[in-house]
Formats: sequence, C-alpha cells, structure tokens
Amino acid sequence: MNLFDLRNLSGREEEVFEDLVVVGGVRIERIISTGQSTPAGTWYDQDHDEWVAVVQGEGVVAFEEGPDVRLGTGDTLMLPAHRKHRVAATSAEPPCIWLAVHGPATQGDAATH
Amino acid sequence: MNLFDLRNLSGREEEVFEDLVVVGGVRIERIISTGQSTPAGTWYDQDHDEWVAVVQGEGVVAFEEGPDVRLGTGDTLMLPAHRKHRVAATSAEPPCIWLAVHGPATQGDAATH
Repeated sequence: MNLFDLRNLSGREEEVFEDLVVVGGVRIERIISTGQSTPAGTWYDQDHDEWVAVVQGEGVVAFEEGPDVRLGTGDTLMLPAHRKHRVAATSAEPPCIWLAVHGPATQGDAATH
Repeated sequence: MNLFDLRNLSGREEEVFEDLVVVGGVRIERIISTGQSTPAGTWYDQDHDEWVAVVQGEGVVAFEEGPDVRLGTGDTLMLPAHRKHRVAATSAEPPCIWLAVHGPATQGDAATH
C-alpha cells in the first residue's frame, strides 16, 4: 500500500476513504479529496480524538467555534473529541491526500446538521 | 508541526526522533534518517505492534526471518510485535522521513544483540 498511489481515484467524483490498518485499537485511514468539502452547516461531532496529516495537496478544516485552519502539504492537526469541525475546502490539483488516525470510539459518532 | 520540515535536522549527524502526538494511547513518532541503519546484528524485538510509513525518501527494513523490504516514498509496513527487525538502510538525499505509529506496549521493549 502506497500513500501516494492514486489508482483508486480514477474516474471517481467522490472522496475515496480507505482503511489502511488498525494499530492498538486505533484506525488509520487514507482519504483522497479532489475539491470536495463537508456540506455547509454540517459538523462532525465525534466521540473520539482524530489526528490528521495532509501528505499531499492542501485542505482547510473549519471549527464551529473557529478558527479555520489551512493545512498545506505535511501539516498536521489534532481534532479533539466533540470539537465540531468540517472540511471547508480541499485541493483538486494535486488531490489532497489525508492520513486520519482515529482513536477508539467511546460511543456512536454522528455528523449533525 | 509539518511532516516535511527538516529544520530540526540541521547540523546533526544522528537520526532525529520526535514524538508528534498520542491518539487513543497510540504514539505517533516522526523519524528523520540520513543514511543511518541499525547496527549489524542488532534486532528490535518490540512488545507492541508498529506501523510505519515513509513519507519522503526511502528505507530498507530487514526481518530476522526475512525478507528485506524496500520502502519507497509513500510505502507502508506493519511490524508486528516480536517480529524482529532492523533498519538496514535509509536514504540521505533526500532524507528519509518516517511516520511510526506505536501501539500500546504490554511490557518493556528491548533492542537485543
């Protein structure tokens, strides 16, 4: 598995989510975005901590309580549980490749409107 | 914190190990290697699973029971607990930047000769 391999993206218009591995109960996911964003007014309210790294391209994470955080290539960000956030923007050229590390969930997660 | 930031490397001849974050009890570390390798005959025998990704450069991981695995940029590898391994080679130009995700340790870890 190569983090920069974009073959799974070909022909798709939606984001691509792939579970890579689970280490010590923590799930590591790769997300390939090509300009998508979370619908306006939708916030992720997660029961688990998530740490993200942009390994290619760039993206913007918005928090309900502010501020927006622009992540360039290589930038990382902690998303503490229940800190409501959304992806406000992602690059399309090049595609934005995220690594997302999800801590163990304590309850069901939800995206709320 | 940017994964590709090499300022901490300047002037050093040894590898640079930096803890980035702990998510759900799992430690994420960045390692910058510039040609170093684990001394011959030394094997890491860890009590925890480790998952590594090479985000820049390349490296070779050798297992005591074989085979050697060459990791190019973006390649990933699972190092299960107690599967003895060593880093056989790393690139210097460009530096080899690893992300290492360490599962919870169940006992003390050791590098054995």
